[in-house]
Amino acid sequence: MTTLQSTRQEKDFLGVRNLDNTLYYGVQTLRAKENFHLSGRRIGEYAEFVKALALVKHAAANANHRIGLLDGAKHAAIANACAEVIDGALHDEFVVDMIQGGAGTSSNMNVNEVLANRALEHLGQEKGDYRHLHPNNDVNMSQSTNDAYPSAIRVGLLLAHLPLLESLSHLAATLASKAEQFDGILKMGRTQLQDAVPMTLGQEFRAMADTVSADLEQLRSLIPAALCAVNLGGTAIGTGINADPRYQAIAIEELAALSGFPIRSAANLIAATSDMGDFVLLSGLIKKTAMRLSKISNDLRLLSSGPRAGLGEINLPPRQPGSSIMPGKVNPVIPEAMNQVAYEIAGNDAALTLAAEAGQLQLNAMEPLIAYKLYDSIRLLDRAVRMLDRECIEGITANPDQCSALVQRSIGIVTALNPYIGYENATRIARLAQETGRTVVELVQSEQLISNELLAEILRPENMVAPRAVAKA
Amino acid sequence: MTTLQSTRQEKDFLGVRNLDNTLYYGVQTLRAKENFHLSGRRIGEYAEFVKALALVKHAAANANHRIGLLDGAKHAAIANACAEVIDGALHDEFVVDMIQGGAGTSSNMNVNEVLANRALEHLGQEKGDYRHLHPNNDVNMSQSTNDAYPSAIRVGLLLAHLPLLESLSHLAATLASKAEQFDGILKMGRTQLQDAVPMTLGQEFRAMADTVSADLEQLRSLIPAALCAVNLGGTAIGTGINADPRYQAIAIEELAALSGFPIRSAANLIAATSDMGDFVLLSGLIKKTAMRLSKISNDLRLLSSGPRAGLGEINLPPRQPGSSIMPGKVNPVIPEAMNQVAYEIAGNDAALTLAAEAGQLQLNAMEPLIAYKLYDSIRLLDRAVRMLDRECIEGITANPDQCSALVQRSIGIVTALNPYIGYENATRIARLAQETGRTVVELVQSEQLISNELLAEILRPENMVAPRAVAKA
Amino acid sequence: MTTLQSTRQEKDFLGVRNLDNTLYYGVQTLRAKENFHLSGRRIGEYAEFVKALALVKHAAANANHRIGLLDGAKHAAIANACAEVIDGALHDEFVVDMIQGGAGTSSNMNVNEVLANRALEHLGQEKGDYRHLHPNNDVNMSQSTNDAYPSAIRVGLLLAHLPLLESLSHLAATLASKAEQFDGILKMGRTQLQDAVPMTLGQEFRAMADTVSADLEQLRSLIPAALCAVNLGGTAIGTGINADPRYQAIAIEELAALSGFPIRSAANLIAATSDMGDFVLLSGLIKKTAMRLSKISNDLRLLSSGPRAGLGEINLPPRQPGSSIMPGKVNPVIPEAMNQVAYEIAGNDAALTLAAEAGQLQLNAMEPLIAYKLYDSIRLLDRAVRMLDRECIEGITANPDQCSALVQRSIGIVTALNPYIGYENATRIARLAQETGRTVVELVQSEQLISNELLAEILRPENMVAPRAVAKA
Amino acid sequence: MTTLQSTRQEKDFLGVRNLDNTLYYGVQTLRAKENFHLSGRRIGEYAEFVKALALVKHAAANANHRIGLLDGAKHAAIANACAEVIDGALHDEFVVDMIQGGAGTSSNMNVNEVLANRALEHLGQEKGDYRHLHPNNDVNMSQSTNDAYPSAIRVGLLLAHLPLLESLSHLAATLASKAEQFDGILKMGRTQLQDAVPMTLGQEFRAMADTVSADLEQLRSLIPAALCAVNLGGTAIGTGINADPRYQAIAIEELAALSGFPIRSAANLIAATSDMGDFVLLSGLIKKTAMRLSKISNDLRLLSSGPRAGLGEINLPPRQPGSSIMPGKVNPVIPEAMNQVAYEIAGNDAALTLAAEAGQLQLNAMEPLIAYKLYDSIRLLDRAVRMLDRECIEGITANPDQCSALVQRSIGIVTALNPYIGYENATRIARLAQETGRTVVELVQSEQLISNELLAEILRPENMVAPRAVAKA
Repeated sequence: MTTLQSTRQEKDFLGVRNLDNTLYYGVQTLRAKENFHLSGRRIGEYAEFVKALALVKHAAANANHRIGLLDGAKHAAIANACAEVIDGALHDEFVVDMIQGGAGTSSNMNVNEVLANRALEHLGQEKGDYRHLHPNNDVNMSQSTNDAYPSAIRVGLLLAHLPLLESLSHLAATLASKAEQFDGILKMGRTQLQDAVPMTLGQEFRAMADTVSADLEQLRSLIPAALCAVNLGGTAIGTGINADPRYQAIAIEELAALSGFPIRSAANLIAATSDMGDFVLLSGLIKKTAMRLSKISNDLRLLSSGPRAGLGEINLPPRQPGSSIMPGKVNPVIPEAMNQVAYEIAGNDAALTLAAEAGQLQLNAMEPLIAYKLYDSIRLLDRAVRMLDRECIEGITANPDQCSALVQRSIGIVTALNPYIGYENATRIARLAQETGRTVVELVQSEQLISNELLAEILRPENMVAPRAVAKA
Repeated sequence: MTTLQSTRQEKDFLGVRNLDNTLYYGVQTLRAKENFHLSGRRIGEYAEFVKALALVKHAAANANHRIGLLDGAKHAAIANACAEVIDGALHDEFVVDMIQGGAGTSSNMNVNEVLANRALEHLGQEKGDYRHLHPNNDVNMSQSTNDAYPSAIRVGLLLAHLPLLESLSHLAATLASKAEQFDGILKMGRTQLQDAVPMTLGQEFRAMADTVSADLEQLRSLIPAALCAVNLGGTAIGTGINADPRYQAIAIEELAALSGFPIRSAANLIAATSDMGDFVLLSGLIKKTAMRLSKISNDLRLLSSGPRAGLGEINLPPRQPGSSIMPGKVNPVIPEAMNQVAYEIAGNDAALTLAAEAGQLQLNAMEPLIAYKLYDSIRLLDRAVRMLDRECIEGITANPDQCSALVQRSIGIVTALNPYIGYENATRIARLAQETGRTVVELVQSEQLISNELLAEILRPENMVAPRAVAKA
Repeated sequence: MTTLQSTRQEKDFLGVRNLDNTLYYGVQTLRAKENFHLSGRRIGEYAEFVKALALVKHAAANANHRIGLLDGAKHAAIANACAEVIDGALHDEFVVDMIQGGAGTSSNMNVNEVLANRALEHLGQEKGDYRHLHPNNDVNMSQSTNDAYPSAIRVGLLLAHLPLLESLSHLAATLASKAEQFDGILKMGRTQLQDAVPMTLGQEFRAMADTVSADLEQLRSLIPAALCAVNLGGTAIGTGINADPRYQAIAIEELAALSGFPIRSAANLIAATSDMGDFVLLSGLIKKTAMRLSKISNDLRLLSSGPRAGLGEINLPPRQPGSSIMPGKVNPVIPEAMNQVAYEIAGNDAALTLAAEAGQLQLNAMEPLIAYKLYDSIRLLDRAVRMLDRECIEGITANPDQCSALVQRSIGIVTALNPYIGYENATRIARLAQETGRTVVELVQSEQLISNELLAEILRPENMVAPRAVAKA
Repeated sequence: MTTLQSTRQEKDFLGVRNLDNTLYYGVQTLRAKENFHLSGRRIGEYAEFVKALALVKHAAANANHRIGLLDGAKHAAIANACAEVIDGALHDEFVVDMIQGGAGTSSNMNVNEVLANRALEHLGQEKGDYRHLHPNNDVNMSQSTNDAYPSAIRVGLLLAHLPLLESLSHLAATLASKAEQFDGILKMGRTQLQDAVPMTLGQEFRAMADTVSADLEQLRSLIPAALCAVNLGGTAIGTGINADPRYQAIAIEELAALSGFPIRSAANLIAATSDMGDFVLLSGLIKKTAMRLSKISNDLRLLSSGPRAGLGEINLPPRQPGSSIMPGKVNPVIPEAMNQVAYEIAGNDAALTLAAEAGQLQLNAMEPLIAYKLYDSIRLLDRAVRMLDRECIEGITANPDQCSALVQRSIGIVTALNPYIGYENATRIARLAQETGRTVVELVQSEQLISNELLAEILRPENMVAPRAVAKA
């Protein structure tokens, strides 16, 4: 076989197959590619996952080398190949569908084969000449798919969650700055879509900001707690069969060092091999944040409804023409897209729940779907948060006059008079206002229930939007 | 054993147990009652299900008698007991939890034991003296739980869906009569919560009425199609082992006659024994209807939002005081309850989906949960529909002035001018209106783009709410 | 602007943008592409949907021409462009993300712009010179996104479901042929994973075949019923504003003719504009079929478990090496992938349910997600069915010896003796067999409960797998 | 009105109603009871929730008294009534349906009315004579439903989760003791239902124990973190309108003291009033634990499958006869019930997710459903865990001979020979074993690939179930 040849042959126990010699992946990847033509999403489309697979292989190679199982030349070649993939190279060689049978064996063999062939080149050998360096015996040494693959999923999710933390942090800051900007604007608070009592538009946006911050803090603390415990070293079923007793601790130490995350051993490797509970928790957290942003999006759409026949308290920045038939119509397209992303993420969580429940005995064969849904949910949420932040919230403006007018004509401000005119009077005034269309202020003044000065004092915005001691008469 | 004794003894292969002699259920029911203390919902709380269990037993007894396996005296006693349960007697003897292991064996034994003991009384024998008439050998003759139980689930659901059809039909009629009542009221249609083009409030309610009617028609045709094919006669796994070859056809004929539904044999009894597909479909249909009513409830809450700082186009009848702190506040409590019922039903569907997927080989052991969720969903929906209909929709009133004012000041009516003043003029007018706060009519008149007569003609309500030929200039 | 220029300028109300002049899409598509970078799935990846969009535009153009609103030259150019897209051309110009705000306006404008620019070329004009033929005024004439887009979703789903019907039909045939092949093989039936009574492996596969056929029939009848009623002609909110009164009937007639499906008008166009019930039903049907195939896959994995420490009744064809660490291990990778597709589809259904519930007033702004999930579910299911059929079921072989050995040593066959030796004797024999490890046959023979001839007769396979009259002694 | 009268009259703004004078609840509870006949589950069926409502009222009364708003006599009477309800009295007076519109107003008024009437008795007054002590003015003083109700939900969930922690702790201990009992039993581990490599039955149960313990620890730390922050003091929308500025801190201090939980103020009261994120997280955690127990139940059902035609490695204790038609059949009824509870809880989570997403502006009107589903999930899980623990796991026995026989005849043990005979030899032996039906040991011995002593050494159980250094030849 020479470099002039455009194809090479590889074989496994099902027989011999030809591969285009430019390809780094091998026969087992080829079979998986043919078997699984489903989602159309290749693992190479998830850069963090591919990097994590290479990080795990790198850590294992280092550990095998340190305990004397992998010689220096092979180790250098594998380590070199891993570093290249971690730097972003060869990702288009990761061609297996994210939905695959075999509990991740195909993804594991994909990385084993790509690294082996790239390492062979580093050794000055031909791709496919596995006598010099073997995907299974060398790259996969001391490993099984069942420990390497879930460990990589975890490391990849740790990588993938960092941009999300950043985008949520930026969103919280944008909302907080809007809150400051809108602090002087009095408006009606609404419960159950009915007029309730006044608040400021700033308070409304600060509540949004604070909920996003709270979610962010929770993600920041719970995701590493959930993901850093790996089962690397457990091999096939967590018993560590065929691994050297020294291997596990060293491999984990290496993985921590290479990845920069505080990776540690799972408490029970057998349990960890089949357990998907951490992923279920993670998906639940992502879903929770998505749903909160969906609620915020719903509110933005309500508050900007109109322009004339809706609430009209705020304006969303126009992003695109809203209608081919209705001139000048502008729609809240960004919040609407955020809603849909939240629903997609809730659907991902439902799929993942089914997959998690389907584990049997020492393994969960549905792990590939779990990985797929988690990577997708995190990426989708990150993209949607950035969109919502920059394409919508940054450009929101208020309609202070409309906000104020709605407060003035509302009946809800009667609540603030409760402590002064009594609940019965307040109820009567409320009903009278509703029946006559007159305002609460007019009615209270006309009945001279309290002095105009006290009335004005009570209805001062700063007095209605916070607790206030009632001066007993 | 005499009637003076207050307890009797029964035994099964786990041993002997004492039972209060007033009880009609026996030792196997007792064990199930002790084993399964979960949902707290007894099968006796689902009257249609209990009746259906008795109908199946009645049909089986008739068939066994007709082919000579059950003698006349026993048959008369069993048939008599069945008729009593079908008439509503002894339902509090059905004490097994709706969530139970054993694929329904406990429910089946519950009905077998109650009927056997009641039949023993009809024979003048003591309860528990199964030598004269036996729960398994006589009441359960030619049956297995695996065919009798799912057949009863189906018949019970057929019974349970009738009130739902009736309540949906009444709701559709109420909505239609509201549509007629509101036909003269012009209002803004809204898409994406943004002002769109005018319509009548009658059209809005007619759309609600028509969607409810459409769902009703679908339920009316698909539910019987899904539920009438039973696996009765298949015994343990659908092969009909231990049943007489003549039995199945006769039992089904009897069940059809007794129940009044066009019961027929499933096409493949082995498939039917483990397959839950019909129940998944049924749950999906119920969920669909519930979600549609949730959307209607959301709309009613939006349209009645206010009274001053919302859309305020309609008023829901007040059902209860809305707040202890806010005088005069009235909340849309009925639509809110409808929403929650819809969410509950969607949750039931999710639970049922998991259970349906969990079938293994010749049976689905999770059938009890499937039955529980379906009976609950149908009953909840029926109750919620009646509530929505009578406590809310019947009493809705319109605010024609508010509807009209929103149209007059809306920019959306510019769409109707499109064909006359051109899209570019229309867009310019729309922007001008938005910027200046002036109305579309004012602006068009001030620019003399068309004659006042034509403008009035175009904006006549009946011309804006239906297709209209444009007279080319 | 000449053909030498590599860019052209287009403008909308947000301003002017440059477009590469090779592109057929225009400024509004460009904005949507920039706004929505979410799923990464472009509408152009869903060929049936793109074709359906062009079919709707073709039908509208024909109708507008027939009623005299669109002149012959423009009509010919648009019709020509539509035909090209229907034939598969220009699909890579459909670049908008499947998840998009705006209720589909971006998808609608994408097709309007591509067709307009292609039609301009047919007219001998420059791309972007919309004075000669306009995306909104001409291609979108008499339409709104709100009627054109959902109508296209429906037509596209009709196109997309045809391959699924075909693949399910082939799968049912494969299962039926396996059933025939395995008809002579006696095996234990199992309920609740416990040994039940005998059946043939053929019966087991025939049950699978029949459930697939039953689902197929249901899909074949319900999908067209659900999808053929469109709201084309309703324009913005279903009132048909700005459409000629003759337009709707003709447009629908044209769409039926062009698509080959029995397209008809929705009963209430206002209801149809916002209602997503048909899509919820369709998703439920797809989910039901997927879940059924998941159950079949679970069964195949159970039946092929082993090879030595499992049930081992059947062998799945090996598709790829199963393990890097365990020599010779072959895994049921195809059914496992089928399971995951089913979970994905259940997740899609959950997402779609949330989206369907989120409709408000005259529109459901979440329609793009609904379309996305439905197209994905149908395509995924089609691919998975083909995979399951060809890569797994076709190659299944049986282990008749193992099947037979399990029957011989089972206790479950004692059930067949029930009618001859009585339930009490049967129970005693069952317990004795369990305690001693002896077989039922040995014990019955040693006790001489019935003659050896009768015993042999009872236990003849054909007598155990069907109803059988008991000769009363 | 005297005690001789059997009815009393109460009125609200909808009019006057008669109430049976034995009842402690009043007119607003009556209206809610009539409005909401849905789930059939009264709030009184959830003892911890009722206690929590009384705890919140007690804390508020103490705070109002300390800041001088509530006089000593009224305070003593209310505090006395609260203490009685906390001790378990009057729970059958809590009659409102768990599914209710009004965002919990009906539940809040139910507790306000019951406490007011009981306090009136303590004051020597008639029930209903609210001049002396008023449900709104006194019991509900400084509160709104919108802060009191969600605060009570949180406190009640804190109470309700304690038994669950206890039952999970006991279950983990039972599993751990089974693990010890089964430590000497070698068996095949299985991945993807295919024979993998050996492990001990003790390891298998210890993995179960450790996952339950891990979940327990997570619940123990995350539930208080999620639930202890309350919005008490925020009144209607979180701004604290009509509350004294001193009130909030004191009320929370009192609630912490009375409940014994480290209750604290939510960081942003406006956010906390509408935010359901903590409940979504809690539901996700409960679902995760339930799903894990479902997986354990699935494994128990697999491992006990048989008795003759299944895996048969363990025996579950028989709880009830398994079949009316199949003598001696015993089914895994307890794990099956555990599965169904898990599915129910997953369904509850789905319902709750929909409800959480439905919040609008300053409130989530769907809170009652959220409370209902959480209380149900926690209670169901607690009951199911106790059932699984005591009715199943405690009584599990092993079949060591079957476990051992499956290992001996397995091909999977060839993996352990890998390091000694090489991967290629191992693969060849595996294939030969599969083809000939011979055992791996026989084949290795017959080929003399390694000495019999080494072979025995490698296959010693303790050497196969843990990492092991390979002595390089």
